[in-house]
Amino acid sequence: MAELVAKHPNRFAGFVAAVPMNDPEAAVKECERAVKKLGAAGVQIFTNVNGRPLDEPDFLPIFEKMAELDAPIWVHPARGAGFPDYQTEKKSKLELWWVFGWPYETSIFMARMVFAGLFDRFPKLKIITHHLGGMVPYFSGRTGPGLDQLGARTEEEDLTVYLRRLKKRPQDYFKMFYADTATFGAAGALRCGLDFFGVDRVLFASDSPFDPEKGAGYIRETIRCLDVLDISEADRRKIYEGNARHLLRLKLP
Amino acid sequence: MAELVAKHPNRFAGFVAAVPMNDPEAAVKECERAVKKLGAAGVQIFTNVNGRPLDEPDFLPIFEKMAELDAPIWVHPARGAGFPDYQTEKKSKLELWWVFGWPYETSIFMARMVFAGLFDRFPKLKIITHHLGGMVPYFSGRTGPGLDQLGARTEEEDLTVYLRRLKKRPQDYFKMFYADTATFGAAGALRCGLDFFGVDRVLFASDSPFDPEKGAGYIRETIRCLDVLDISEADRRKIYEGNARHLLRLKLP
Repeated sequence: MAELVAKHPNRFAGFVAAVPMNDPEAAVKECERAVKKLGAAGVQIFTNVNGRPLDEPDFLPIFEKMAELDAPIWVHPARGAGFPDYQTEKKSKLELWWVFGWPYETSIFMARMVFAGLFDRFPKLKIITHHLGGMVPYFSGRTGPGLDQLGARTEEEDLTVYLRRLKKRPQDYFKMFYADTATFGAAGALRCGLDFFGVDRVLFASDSPFDPEKGAGYIRETIRCLDVLDISEADRRKIYEGNARHLLRLKLP
Repeated sequence: MAELVAKHPNRFAGFVAAVPMNDPEAAVKECERAVKKLGAAGVQIFTNVNGRPLDEPDFLPIFEKMAELDAPIWVHPARGAGFPDYQTEKKSKLELWWVFGWPYETSIFMARMVFAGLFDRFPKLKIITHHLGGMVPYFSGRTGPGLDQLGARTEEEDLTVYLRRLKKRPQDYFKMFYADTATFGAAGALRCGLDFFGVDRVLFASDSPFDPEKGAGYIRETIRCLDVLDISEADRRKIYEGNARHLLRLKLP
């Protein structure tokens, strides 16, 4: 990737590294090498590591390293049909593990990071979530006043301890994530996500080439949605490129 | 419920019946009795029946009966911590089964009903989904162009057969659901859901008394969001009461 970007500076603005999350110690070293030596803009991780949640203490040094490097982490959902949707079934049918399961898993990742106190430890950590923040913006009433009441729905253990460990409301941390615009032409969703994260934390992305046209469709539709948004041109430029230039520290002509 | 409504006509506009879904034959009879004899506005069901999905053929006569009675079905999510969020865990932590799992389960229910051909069989069936249609409006890019490509992510079986069985695009059926406004003060979510379903299919609901104030909060916040929506006063009245009057066939003073 580094070679390709170096070879075609007018084609590629940068690249993002993959790191060996199943070996956190090696991953920390690779984060350092990729960003400092190879010039990666950041790293991409997935919402689980061989089925394990990212709030396990083993993974903490990776987030610590990325905060120290001041380079963003892209988070991509990862889930297959192995999560059944009903207790009487063995797998998720009709690719619903993809349709709804992916944004669900992104949302779970976000919540687990919030309650692990990740942003209290590393307030400048930059995590870019796919599909415009998973379910969080549309269900901000649940991550907001809903999670303020954490524990009210559970009798077996006292969950309010998780609220008391945080310095702020859960909702304040959910707003510290960044989010991309990959919503496939849903203009209302784009507005909703932008309302939640604000113009400084939303970055253009299309998810090309996974549209029915196999390339051009989602790019065109995402641009169409962005262009009709009732925001200033300056804010629109932030979403298209300004936030990326800043966050990725791109040195472009 | 019927007695209470009859006793306090100025306090209650109507009621909705619970029916024994674990015995579909009895449920069909109770739907008929509740609506025709007791004057129920409709019935409420949950997104699963003892863990079973609602697209099992056993449940079909219930939907058929409600379509015949031309009375709506309210669908409420039902899921506990028993759906783990990671393969290495035994249960869903931090009440995330509630925060995100409930809207997820609503969305799965909707998709399964769509692909069961429910709206091809009963085009006039009226199903009111909680929390503004679950995840569907925010992820309408996934239920739209995403599900138009059903099968593209699966090798073990040919899922395109499910598309060919339907008369229309999956997205067209997702838009046939009704949705309530219980989004707990998230104005952006309300706009997004309204964009998707349209003003004729969204009904006021607050989810009171499950707010931190234990009653008034979600009512007040939902009204605040509705009142700032950039829609005509006539459309706003539809959401507040017109759609309910029509759908529930309320006979009010």
